[in-house]
Amino acid sequence: MTGAQSFRISGRFYPVYAGTGIFHDLENFLASSFPSSGVFILADENVSSHCLPLLLEKCPALETAPVFILPPGEKSKDISRVVEVWNWLAGLNAERTDLLINLGGGVVTDLGGFISGTFKRGMAFVNIPTTLIGQADASLGGKSGINVSNVKNQAGLFYNPSAVFIYPDFLKTLPSRELRAGYAEIIKSALITGGEFWEQVRKPGALEKIDMKEIVQKSAMAKLAITDNDPLDQGQRNALNFGHTIGHALESCSIKPGRKQLLHGEAVAAGMVCESYLSALLAGLDPGIEELLRNLVNEYFDQVDIGEKDIEEILDLINQDKKIREGLIKVPLIKAPGKVLMDQQVAPGMIREALLHYQEKAG
Amino acid sequence: MTGAQSFRISGRFYPVYAGTGIFHDLENFLASSFPSSGVFILADENVSSHCLPLLLEKCPALETAPVFILPPGEKSKDISRVVEVWNWLAGLNAERTDLLINLGGGVVTDLGGFISGTFKRGMAFVNIPTTLIGQADASLGGKSGINVSNVKNQAGLFYNPSAVFIYPDFLKTLPSRELRAGYAEIIKSALITGGEFWEQVRKPGALEKIDMKEIVQKSAMAKLAITDNDPLDQGQRNALNFGHTIGHALESCSIKPGRKQLLHGEAVAAGMVCESYLSALLAGLDPGIEELLRNLVNEYFDQVDIGEKDIEEILDLINQDKKIREGLIKVPLIKAPGKVLMDQQVAPGMIREALLHYQEKAG
Repeated sequence: MTGAQSFRISGRFYPVYAGTGIFHDLENFLASSFPSSGVFILADENVSSHCLPLLLEKCPALETAPVFILPPGEKSKDISRVVEVWNWLAGLNAERTDLLINLGGGVVTDLGGFISGTFKRGMAFVNIPTTLIGQADASLGGKSGINVSNVKNQAGLFYNPSAVFIYPDFLKTLPSRELRAGYAEIIKSALITGGEFWEQVRKPGALEKIDMKEIVQKSAMAKLAITDNDPLDQGQRNALNFGHTIGHALESCSIKPGRKQLLHGEAVAAGMVCESYLSALLAGLDPGIEELLRNLVNEYFDQVDIGEKDIEEILDLINQDKKIREGLIKVPLIKAPGKVLMDQQVAPGMIREALLHYQEKAG
Repeated sequence: MTGAQSFRISGRFYPVYAGTGIFHDLENFLASSFPSSGVFILADENVSSHCLPLLLEKCPALETAPVFILPPGEKSKDISRVVEVWNWLAGLNAERTDLLINLGGGVVTDLGGFISGTFKRGMAFVNIPTTLIGQADASLGGKSGINVSNVKNQAGLFYNPSAVFIYPDFLKTLPSRELRAGYAEIIKSALITGGEFWEQVRKPGALEKIDMKEIVQKSAMAKLAITDNDPLDQGQRNALNFGHTIGHALESCSIKPGRKQLLHGEAVAAGMVCESYLSALLAGLDPGIEELLRNLVNEYFDQVDIGEKDIEEILDLINQDKKIREGLIKVPLIKAPGKVLMDQQVAPGMIREALLHYQEKAG
């Protein structure tokens, strides 16, 4: 592997390796940490034609590892799949001391983390994220989740991987819509981190020009810094939810028949525009930054069409997602790039106003 | 509550309250640790006529808590029940900051621990065990489990309760067969602890005479001491599996149609007799102690009828339960009361011999 390079971020709970040399790191990791363990691979159909063969070619140690291929997409994050994979592992005599490798996007790492954390009371796992959103965000932080009765991540765990391996060239396999969806979490990461990261990302068209490898590493490091400090989501980690309260509701709303289903990143992008409006209104965000963020999102994302009658449904969904206590919803808001105010109380009427404002600006 | 008393064992991870005064402790605990949280109760039909009404009467704070009643028995430890309870909690807008109270035997605390640990990535729970086996053993140590495809505890978690409350008078509600089944874990606890606890329990008929409150407390303290030192079952905790390798296989075997289904404790009692034979053979246990243990078990338990053709099935079940590595099964054996040798390698032929010996001694 001439010229293959990687670097190691030593997280508090697990290391993250990133770069073209990660297959070498993975082989060393397997040899030193799991010398006599069984290794199992969980993947989905999206990665079976390119990423999986590449992994097996680059890591001969994995050639004989059993592989479970999931159907792609969010509907695989279901308890019936969990049971299937538990039974598959049990049928292969997998033990608590064995290792599960999750190769894929957020669905695979979310599902695989849950399965690893529960099989025989917890086996080890590593994540090898293959999507931009996975590499920059979802594969890190130890949150896993499955959907129950159509509620996203209703069940899940805080259960850390033993290591995460980020191979930048996997991104070349992504459809452009998937890649762009990943920009949303990177914009969020840059905005809540502030400083040089934000300055780099905020420039018009920057995400199409900058080396994505470098940006992924910055985003991953930012995620790791926050989750290392707040592994159980009891404080600081809430900043990562910027744009997600409204974003999640838009995402759920878009699943209805006859709608254009939004990708997670697309919904979060619109959610960030709405929540930056709230930030300007309630948290002192400079309206210039609010406008800059809206323009940045518009560069990469189509406007989401929110009809007037959708708004009540979105408010209902937010109510289900984040129990409204005393008539108020708590969300993190941005005071300035790098400065997040946690648990800001927002009345439902304000959210309605933010959604209307989002629609007006489109016209 | 005149004369109601309790004492507190401060575990490393959570406190255990035991005694007739625990309802007072529970109310204090709720007021101080969960002042503004929603509280939910998981129970089974066995406790709905006596223990649950008593709890609600003694703790007025719980009067309005929603209660989910499970059908009794091992078959409730199933993923479909887990999904039902997740949905029940979600329908009542339960949050991660809320509390689940598990009131019942090992099935309820095992299932409730799993549900708490996975609902919205983990809510808090407390255990109020109502059976002898629950009070002396199963409600402590943070292990939860559910059965998958008829494999006992194939999925589960290490996830600690916030507190455990042991009310001795609940034992008065138990059918005598259930109560006696609990003696097995107490005998095991005394044998691996040794010293004065073992001296007390080993005397003929002792368990029918001694104050059960005192014995439960000793057993609970022994369990807590071990699990505090080895929360993730990576060493010392293995001692608690004495009698359980063969015991689990006997239990699974007894589920087949036409058999008399054994309670967990009944199977473990026979397993201990077999494994003490192995201990004498391989770990230097004094044959006098082996005999004493057999007599002690015979005092409280009927002989389990093991046919010659059952033996191969039992060996197969052990193989499924504990992957035989290089033809050997690893089990904890007793060198002397209070002295357990971990990970002793036993050939399948030895287990066959132990089972035959158990049968011979019956005749």
